[in-house]
Amino acid sequence: MYPNTYNYLLKIEYDGTSFVGWQYQINGKSIQEEIEKALSKLLSEKIRVIGAGRTDKGVHALGQYANFFSSKKISNKDKFLYSINFFLRKNLISIIEVKRKNKLFSSRFNAKERIYEYRIINRRANLSLENNKAWHIKKKLNINALNKGAKLFEGTHDFSSFRSSSCSALSPIKTMKSVKIKKNGCEIIIQFKSKSFLQNQVRSMVGSLKYLSIGKWSYTNFKKVFYSKNRSRCAPPAPACGLYLKDVKY
Amino acid sequence: MYPNTYNYLLKIEYDGTSFVGWQYQINGKSIQEEIEKALSKLLSEKIRVIGAGRTDKGVHALGQYANFFSSKKISNKDKFLYSINFFLRKNLISIIEVKRKNKLFSSRFNAKERIYEYRIINRRANLSLENNKAWHIKKKLNINALNKGAKLFEGTHDFSSFRSSSCSALSPIKTMKSVKIKKNGCEIIIQFKSKSFLQNQVRSMVGSLKYLSIGKWSYTNFKKVFYSKNRSRCAPPAPACGLYLKDVKY
Repeated sequence: MYPNTYNYLLKIEYDGTSFVGWQYQINGKSIQEEIEKALSKLLSEKIRVIGAGRTDKGVHALGQYANFFSSKKISNKDKFLYSINFFLRKNLISIIEVKRKNKLFSSRFNAKERIYEYRIINRRANLSLENNKAWHIKKKLNINALNKGAKLFEGTHDFSSFRSSSCSALSPIKTMKSVKIKKNGCEIIIQFKSKSFLQNQVRSMVGSLKYLSIGKWSYTNFKKVFYSKNRSRCAPPAPACGLYLKDVKY
Repeated sequence: MYPNTYNYLLKIEYDGTSFVGWQYQINGKSIQEEIEKALSKLLSEKIRVIGAGRTDKGVHALGQYANFFSSKKISNKDKFLYSINFFLRKNLISIIEVKRKNKLFSSRFNAKERIYEYRIINRRANLSLENNKAWHIKKKLNINALNKGAKLFEGTHDFSSFRSSSCSALSPIKTMKSVKIKKNGCEIIIQFKSKSFLQNQVRSMVGSLKYLSIGKWSYTNFKKVFYSKNRSRCAPPAPACGLYLKDVKY
């Protein structure tokens, strides 16, 4: 299929604040483009990377993955990591790991589980150290309501209510392996595990969980929105700055 | 002493990256100045704040404290916090709490304990999400050596070796209540508790702990530097971006 080529998988961390998103776009700097430019320079050949998930503008990653094909063999991983991070030093993008994979491996299609975390700071005062790194919600969130709402998402459902109108997935049916709430002081983290997600699904679910947990929606209303399979009934999606692609399991 | 005045204590969080430091200076924006401007506008009188610790340029705070005197009584704390944070919204400064204190209370002189934390990310890859929020050390740190060095600082000692030449403290003798290392993956946090610190003390101690834990200094050398009481033998101080004033106890 790809004679004389090697297939490598990268683990990537980035601060998404100043990027147009993972994917290459005409109107600004994308993470994909910056990594491709750095790899192409380092390996002296045109390199394209395939990401495990297409994170939106402003979304962060602690564990994004991408694979690429190259005719060059990477014999010293430490040296490779040193060099690629050197080429990327002016961007807030870090290459954490590199692994050789077989030629059929795809970071996108071989993913068994994707883990997203959504971070909320629930307090009155402005954000300073967490600015652009979390969603600031001033109204007190009801944690019991949040837990109850999160529980409803677990399992296999039609998530049409939480799907972007531009989503290209063939089916709106997805299986959430788990949706967990962790609270530490005023920081609330909602963790989602699933094989795959619809476009905008996590932010739409979090936006609706907020409406439930500030009491704008009753649990009955919340359920109605979920089961309506009607995007127009969804709450405004949570902002990008709170969302992290935490890890992908292969 | 201050007739018809109220004394208030603020708990303050900030991202120190873009400030010249806590203290008012001619050459740029200080945290003190921004808070004084906001308070003066809000309370319609000239306000001066007295900070518990004078953090340097680039140093962060999760729990800085400052008190101020005003002729105005703050009857609604929630409303006050809402308004003061509104006036500060363009700065990465958050006012977390306000408390009324007696007229003799001083955030600086009544402090029983100051807690500083120093954050290190010990890995090969560049920092992205932690950029300006931690010290990036690429060389592998030996945690046993780090613990052993930290232990040596505990108790009452002459810290002249770790004191800035511009430090104005009357005595170089300080008592470290505890120096603790917490490790979580590649993140290492060194926590220092003491009633007070010399200028540049934490960063100087951390710089020397680094030399010890990358093996540039033996434990014997490290001890010699500490006991020499000679500033010129200290390792280069750790950068400001890793230092956090975590909390102050009264």
